[in-house]
Amino acid sequence: MLHNDLFLRAARGETTERTPVWLMRQAGRILPEYRKLRGSLSGFKELVETPALAAEVTIQPIDALDVDAAIIFSDILVVPDAMGLPYEMVEARGPLFPTTIQSAADVARLRVADPHEHLGYVLEAIRITKKALNGRVPLIGFAGAPWTILAYMVEGHGSKTFSKARRLLYQEPALAHLLLEKITATTIAYLQAQVEAGAQVVQVFDSWAGILPPAHYTEFSSRYIAQICAALAPLAPITVFAKGAWWAVPEFAAMPCRTIGLDWNQTPADVRAAAPGKTLQGNLDPAALYGTRAQVKAATEAMLRRFAGGPHIANLGHGVYPDTDADNVRVFVDTVKAWQG
Amino acid sequence: MLHNDLFLRAARGETTERTPVWLMRQAGRILPEYRKLRGSLSGFKELVETPALAAEVTIQPIDALDVDAAIIFSDILVVPDAMGLPYEMVEARGPLFPTTIQSAADVARLRVADPHEHLGYVLEAIRITKKALNGRVPLIGFAGAPWTILAYMVEGHGSKTFSKARRLLYQEPALAHLLLEKITATTIAYLQAQVEAGAQVVQVFDSWAGILPPAHYTEFSSRYIAQICAALAPLAPITVFAKGAWWAVPEFAAMPCRTIGLDWNQTPADVRAAAPGKTLQGNLDPAALYGTRAQVKAATEAMLRRFAGGPHIANLGHGVYPDTDADNVRVFVDTVKAWQG
Repeated sequence: MLHNDLFLRAARGETTERTPVWLMRQAGRILPEYRKLRGSLSGFKELVETPALAAEVTIQPIDALDVDAAIIFSDILVVPDAMGLPYEMVEARGPLFPTTIQSAADVARLRVADPHEHLGYVLEAIRITKKALNGRVPLIGFAGAPWTILAYMVEGHGSKTFSKARRLLYQEPALAHLLLEKITATTIAYLQAQVEAGAQVVQVFDSWAGILPPAHYTEFSSRYIAQICAALAPLAPITVFAKGAWWAVPEFAAMPCRTIGLDWNQTPADVRAAAPGKTLQGNLDPAALYGTRAQVKAATEAMLRRFAGGPHIANLGHGVYPDTDADNVRVFVDTVKAWQG
Repeated sequence: MLHNDLFLRAARGETTERTPVWLMRQAGRILPEYRKLRGSLSGFKELVETPALAAEVTIQPIDALDVDAAIIFSDILVVPDAMGLPYEMVEARGPLFPTTIQSAADVARLRVADPHEHLGYVLEAIRITKKALNGRVPLIGFAGAPWTILAYMVEGHGSKTFSKARRLLYQEPALAHLLLEKITATTIAYLQAQVEAGAQVVQVFDSWAGILPPAHYTEFSSRYIAQICAALAPLAPITVFAKGAWWAVPEFAAMPCRTIGLDWNQTPADVRAAAPGKTLQGNLDPAALYGTRAQVKAATEAMLRRFAGGPHIANLGHGVYPDTDADNVRVFVDTVKAWQG
């Protein structure tokens, strides 16, 4: 039994008595208790791969910020890791794949991962979290969209242009599809296992959606997101967040996802018109949390007004920036909770 | 007298007998003759600040690629440099400002630069280029949009989020406007001087437009671009290219700019509808030039078809990537020239 099921009901498309709120990257560097735990460990991956610790940092923002949902602490790159392509998290630089995918032989060597065998640590973290949450709020599971995962596997690290990954789409589209199919199969099994382990909503993050031209996005990204939605929809409500792919809303509208995430460039009224009946999630500029408390409150209220007219889950338009004052995050959360519409 | 005035006529809004073509960053690392010259110098800034050399690399793509316009070889960051905030170009990393703008005192210390005194090397490069071109093709001058220049001056270097620059807009909007006014005054004088020195069209590059929410874009970027357009329109046709600011087309449509540049996320028909009467420039995905020659030809023809119905200047949707095969660039240029519409 959930004590606070506001988020879950909104994620199912129901109208709720107030707007639920959580933040992308709420578990992390904005919280002193996270920084303390993280500082005691050898690295980011130790935290991700140790279920009791991942569960602990998943719950920290529920205690510290009183948000309406928890999201399992993990990383989208556990999927390529499970497929046989390990990554490292380099301090202050980001993820790095020592080997990358360049050829048909590289793709052939990858496995479709069995989530129980290769991602058991995430499933165990979900089970521990669910028990510890004891029904306080719902738990969100997640995965990267196949295109975004391919982008890292081919490029090998973050990039402003991901030009190596995009080169593959032009030079070897058939190979790109083979790779995307393997990632998609892994992702579907992984998200299904997350739901079995206790995740009540799942979110697909297409972080690098915005660097593809629309025709490539349809061919190499949204068709695989659609497959994930079709497989998961019978099990749990799904949220799709494709950063920068403002033109793809009609494609998401046609998928059996329940919620569409908006970045801070998007206008809620336009998305509502293009995706009638969907719950919308977002979309305060993360930089708005740098203002004074009065400014944060005003910006949050302006954001809430823009989402009027349908189900809304308040969030930022991307992950919270690490140097954000946690007190300002609380102002954001409290403003949503006090909002009278 | 211009031997090839196709680009200039299209930039004035005239219909031309064929579509003119040039590439953003056509002068640069894709050409072996550029790499050879660059390798003989102490650094990027020596090339930018030595008029005869800047003129030489400006003309290289006219010889090597036979494009319909030259663009003066320079950098948008010469403007902060001229205002009293010097930058360095760090190999493989990009620009770096040893000191950045953080306070009202920092802004007060900046000067509105006199282009003849502080940017004379660019004006001299334009004069040398014009003489050497001898009317073969028109010459484009350029500057960064004030928001993009502010972003570098505050952040100090490239960034995925420019969160420090965006923080300033929330925390100290009045100070941001003071800084933007100084940059705008410098930019207007600089572009006017470029036209006096011989630039026949000027382009404003808002490279970091896409990271602002629409309301901030209107307040902190497009209002200053509008001032630049108003000041320059009596002197020369102006092109505005705001990467990622797809929502701002109606704002540009209302400005006295003649041409709107599109990135590869934008759909030409939508931009034509929102900006009737403007010339459109763009927008092939730079990664499309990684394909085979047949693929480059097909992608270029598909792009040309999408721009049907009004004046078009063929280009990429952003700068050409440095590892692009120059032969494929020639296929792009030649396909545009052979296009029968």
